[in-house]
Amino acid sequence: MTMYSGYLIDLDGTVYNGTEKIPAAVEFVKVLNEKKIPYLFLTNNSTKHPRDVAEKLRAMDIAATENQVLTTSMATAKYVSEQHPGAKVYPIGEEGLIMALEAEGLVLTDDDPDYVVMGLDREITYEKLSIGALSIRNGAKFIATNGDIKLPSERGFLPGAGSVISVLSVTTEVEPKFIGKPEPIMVEQALEVLGTDKAETLMIGDNYYTDILAGINAGVDSLLVFTGVTKLADLQAIDKQPTYTIQSLADWKF
Amino acid sequence: MTMYSGYLIDLDGTVYNGTEKIPAAVEFVKVLNEKKIPYLFLTNNSTKHPRDVAEKLRAMDIAATENQVLTTSMATAKYVSEQHPGAKVYPIGEEGLIMALEAEGLVLTDDDPDYVVMGLDREITYEKLSIGALSIRNGAKFIATNGDIKLPSERGFLPGAGSVISVLSVTTEVEPKFIGKPEPIMVEQALEVLGTDKAETLMIGDNYYTDILAGINAGVDSLLVFTGVTKLADLQAIDKQPTYTIQSLADWKF
Repeated sequence: MTMYSGYLIDLDGTVYNGTEKIPAAVEFVKVLNEKKIPYLFLTNNSTKHPRDVAEKLRAMDIAATENQVLTTSMATAKYVSEQHPGAKVYPIGEEGLIMALEAEGLVLTDDDPDYVVMGLDREITYEKLSIGALSIRNGAKFIATNGDIKLPSERGFLPGAGSVISVLSVTTEVEPKFIGKPEPIMVEQALEVLGTDKAETLMIGDNYYTDILAGINAGVDSLLVFTGVTKLADLQAIDKQPTYTIQSLADWKF
Repeated sequence: MTMYSGYLIDLDGTVYNGTEKIPAAVEFVKVLNEKKIPYLFLTNNSTKHPRDVAEKLRAMDIAATENQVLTTSMATAKYVSEQHPGAKVYPIGEEGLIMALEAEGLVLTDDDPDYVVMGLDREITYEKLSIGALSIRNGAKFIATNGDIKLPSERGFLPGAGSVISVLSVTTEVEPKFIGKPEPIMVEQALEVLGTDKAETLMIGDNYYTDILAGINAGVDSLLVFTGVTKLADLQAIDKQPTYTIQSLADWKF
């Protein structure tokens, strides 16, 4: 296996499962720290502030600062801000999205916005969806944090961001620009934060269709770990394989 | 033109536009009454009780009793009841749907339902969508009142039933059974109510993709009137044409 100078690490299914940490991942991050190898956690969860994500990780004995977390909301806010600094944005989402947009200096408004930016919103209302639809029909660009259709919970799979976002794409017949994994944008932003090149960075995750495809789409090597969504058997029908597969992060040879 | 013994008549765009009656339609219904030709109003609006629909029509000088209105919610409730009398149903919708399901003797519950039945719900919440998704994953059959993606309003097009319903189809990867126009089910139920045969009944509407296709799909002659959604130019690219087209119902020769 190759030496990598930087690691991009997915969270749910890779580092923890819901509220339970994965011990091999805890050890894995310890080794990264001992070896002083930079790493960044990449999550499609658009609802949380990076400070809260880092806090959850530290409570699991995983070293993480706010600056070592890149949420899809942060990536989305940065993307919009780069396209149009100070743009007027109508946000549909939770705290993580609202704060990320504000942190980029974007102006939040429901009055003739330049962008409709949507993530998972568990306080969704018909009025929010109506404002979103009217704005898009009126010419606002339509940006979505991520396309995940399912949200794992103790009750089973609840509607994910991608399925709630479909209300707007179906009614306006406009497809959003997606930012989160498996799109390459988020990985490219992560490389900038980490300061490593594509060739020397590894994307690690448990979900082929988000984490691994994000790596493949961005031209970064990928490591699929079987502690979450994707199982070995799932890979048989797949054309583009991960660079590596592994049962547990304990098996990784640095 | 042919003599028809029964008329199925769409509402919005055909008989009125929003709150404004279409005078030619008022006269048209007067002639039906003079000639004692039976007629039934067919609407994809799942939110209203037929009593309220009839009241709105009478306020426009259009003779209509509750029994002369078939809403997509009534058709949906009847369909479910015929498939499974007394079934347990989790409803996502407004008064028109709830009352139609109850009128058919179906049991409304969020506890292990046999069916998830969804129409337009402008009080939609993430919790309702979650219960719907979990129930469908748990084996409940998924039925939808109608697939209209847009809802006309004074503010512009708001999300229609079909776009809000897409949250559940996208997250569960299960397509609902649609009941309203352009599906033939609603027209077939209307013929039973009216007591006329397919060959002697005419479906009248302003929307090619709902009203006219419903007629075509059910094997009933159709009349497209250009007082609403579909324009003459829209018909050029269409393969299956309406039986008749007309500028105004004033031009119809009985």
